[in-house]
Amino acid sequence: MNEKLLMTPGPTNVPKRVLDSMSQSMMHHRTSEFSCMLSQMSERLKYVFQTSSDVLTFPAAGTGGLEAVIVNLFSPGDRVLLVSIGVFGDRFSKIAQVFGLDVDKLEVPWGMGADPQTIKESLKDSHKAVIVTHNETSTAAANDIKKIAEMLSGEDKLLIVDAVSSLGGLELRMDEWGIDAVVTASQKALMSPPGLAFISLSERAWEKSKESRLPKYYWDFEKARADLNKAKAQNPYTPAVSLIAATNEALAIIQEEGIENAWKRHELMANRIRSGIEKIGLGIFTHRDYLSNTVTAVDVGEKAETVKAMMENEHGIIISGGQGVLKGRIIRIGHMGCIDGEMADRTLKALEDCMNRA
Amino acid sequence: MNEKLLMTPGPTNVPKRVLDSMSQSMMHHRTSEFSCMLSQMSERLKYVFQTSSDVLTFPAAGTGGLEAVIVNLFSPGDRVLLVSIGVFGDRFSKIAQVFGLDVDKLEVPWGMGADPQTIKESLKDSHKAVIVTHNETSTAAANDIKKIAEMLSGEDKLLIVDAVSSLGGLELRMDEWGIDAVVTASQKALMSPPGLAFISLSERAWEKSKESRLPKYYWDFEKARADLNKAKAQNPYTPAVSLIAATNEALAIIQEEGIENAWKRHELMANRIRSGIEKIGLGIFTHRDYLSNTVTAVDVGEKAETVKAMMENEHGIIISGGQGVLKGRIIRIGHMGCIDGEMADRTLKALEDCMNRA
Repeated sequence: MNEKLLMTPGPTNVPKRVLDSMSQSMMHHRTSEFSCMLSQMSERLKYVFQTSSDVLTFPAAGTGGLEAVIVNLFSPGDRVLLVSIGVFGDRFSKIAQVFGLDVDKLEVPWGMGADPQTIKESLKDSHKAVIVTHNETSTAAANDIKKIAEMLSGEDKLLIVDAVSSLGGLELRMDEWGIDAVVTASQKALMSPPGLAFISLSERAWEKSKESRLPKYYWDFEKARADLNKAKAQNPYTPAVSLIAATNEALAIIQEEGIENAWKRHELMANRIRSGIEKIGLGIFTHRDYLSNTVTAVDVGEKAETVKAMMENEHGIIISGGQGVLKGRIIRIGHMGCIDGEMADRTLKALEDCMNRA
Repeated sequence: MNEKLLMTPGPTNVPKRVLDSMSQSMMHHRTSEFSCMLSQMSERLKYVFQTSSDVLTFPAAGTGGLEAVIVNLFSPGDRVLLVSIGVFGDRFSKIAQVFGLDVDKLEVPWGMGADPQTIKESLKDSHKAVIVTHNETSTAAANDIKKIAEMLSGEDKLLIVDAVSSLGGLELRMDEWGIDAVVTASQKALMSPPGLAFISLSERAWEKSKESRLPKYYWDFEKARADLNKAKAQNPYTPAVSLIAATNEALAIIQEEGIENAWKRHELMANRIRSGIEKIGLGIFTHRDYLSNTVTAVDVGEKAETVKAMMENEHGIIISGGQGVLKGRIIRIGHMGCIDGEMADRTLKALEDCMNRA
C-alpha cells in the first residue's frame, strides 16, 4: 500500500512477518487448522492481557469493543462513574449514554490524568462501575490504572478499562490489579492490522453480565465464550481469518520479546522521543505526571497542520494532528508497537527540519 | 495459511493478487491515499450492488451487517414479515426479535424458496417491512428477489434483502428492482477475506431510518454516510485497512470481468457441478425450482461426515456439511467467487472417489 513510516497513535507499522502471514491462501474458519490458530492466539492474548480469563475476539474497530462491553454488562438506567481525560473518554461516555446508562462524568482537564483519590471521592453507592481510559491518545496522557484499582479495591464496583491504545505498550496486569473488563484492538501496540477488537472479563464481570437487559446478538459475550471453549475453538460468526493470522503472528513476536521487555522498550522510546522534542526546543503538551509511553503530544502552535503535511510529503513520516479543541495546536507522535531507536531518531530529525522551515 | 481448495459457501478462495494487496506496508486511515482507496472501493461496490446509493462499510461479520440494518431501520414493537427458508433466515428473525421487533415469520420448507404470491398474501397493513434472504446457504436454495420485489411494488413496505452469500454471484439489481436495503459481506462471491460487512439503503429506507428509536453508536448509518461523503472520504472509526485494500482489488477483478459475466459464470459453474453430481449418481437436496448458483446441497445420507473429512484429508478440498436438522445428511459444495471449471471438475472427481470408498 505505501512505504511510509507510521508514527501515529494507530494504525501502527506492521512487521513484515505479520504482513506476510496474510498473503497465504484463505483458511476456512470451521477447520481444525483454524481452531488451532484461534486457540493459540487466544492463549497469547491472555499473556498480553496478563489474565487467566478468556479473551474474546470480534471483527470490529476498538469502538465496537467499547460498545460491546456496555451492552453486555449493563441495563438502561444503570448508574456509572465515567472518568474522561479526553476524546476517547468522551466517546466511551457517549456510548454509555446512547444505551441508556445514567452516566456521571468525571472530567479531568485535557493533558492531565485522573487522581485516584478524586475518583474514590466521586463514587456513589448507586454506581455499578467505574469506567476509565488507560491511555488517552488525544492528549497523550496515561492514567495510573494500578493506583486507581488499588483505591477501588474492596468497593463492589466493576472497574472497566479502555486499553485500546495501551495494551502491549504500557504495563497492565488485569488479574493482579483486579480489573473487571479490558478492551483493546489489533492496530495499536499489538502492531497488527486494524479490524479486530479483543475483550476480557473477570469472573465478577461475567456474573454481572447475567443481569444485563440490553439487547445483544452480534456482541453476545456468553455465546462468544461458549464457542471459544468448544472442543474445537470457534467464533460464533465468520471471523476475520487473515487478521487473526496476522495478530497471532504479532503476539508471537511479543512473546519472544517478553511483555515486560515490551513495556520497558516503550518507556525507553518515549523518553528518547521526549528528550529529542525538548532538544529541538519544543514543549510537551501533557502534564509531566501523566506522560504516556505510547504517544507524545507536542505544542507547535499554529504550525501544527503545516508541519504534519511536511512530515508526510517531504519525509514520508505520518504523524497526527490534534483532535477536538487541540486541532491545529498540537501534533501527536505515536511510538507504540514495533518502534525502535532508528524510527524515533528519524522522526525527530525530520521534525527539526520541518520546524525550521515551516 | 494453507493450500487447500475452498469449495464451501464462504470463506471462499481469495485470488493471489487480492492476497498480495494485504502484504503491503500499513496505510494510515486518515491520509489522502486511504481516502482515495475507500472512495474507489465504494464506487466499485455501487457497481456490484447495481445502485447509485452509498454503500457503507463496517469492520464486522455479515451477521453484524444484519444487526446493523435492524437497529438503524426499526424501533421496538415494529411489525415485520420475515421470510425464512433456512438457518440464515432464522438468524435474521432471531436478531429482529432480540431487538424487540414484532416478527411474523413466514416459514418455507427447507430446500424450497419463497412463493412471491404467498409473501403478498401474508402481508398485513401493520407490516413495516418484508425481510428476505436472497441465497440460503444452509439449504442451497435461492429466492427470486426480482419477482418478490415486483409483487411488492406499490406497497408501502421496505424490502430488505440479506445478500451475504449472493452478491456478485447471483443477479441482483438493487435500484432497478426497487430493493430498500441490501446487506453483504466480503468473504463470499466477492472473493475477499472475511471481516467486512457492506450495506446500502434506498432513499425510502434512509427516510424511514430517521424514525428508528433503537440505540446505535457503532452501527450508526447516518454517521457512516456523513463520513463517507466528506471531501476526504472516511470511516467513523478505524477501518480494517488491509481488508479494504483486498476487497478493492477483488472488486477490480469483478469490474474487469463485468458483473453480468460474473453472474453468467456462476450459472455455468453451478450447472457443471449439478450435472457432475447427477453423473456420480447422487441426488440434489434442493427443489429444482429454487436451485442456487452459488452453492449446491447434495444428499449423501449417513456418509456425509465421512465424505467431508475424506475430501479434506485425502484431496485437500474443503466442503461443508449440513446445518441444523440437515447435519449429517447432506454435504454442501460452494461454488462462488473465483471459481473456474478446473476447480469444479477437481471437486467432482474427488467426490466420486470419496463416495466409492466411504
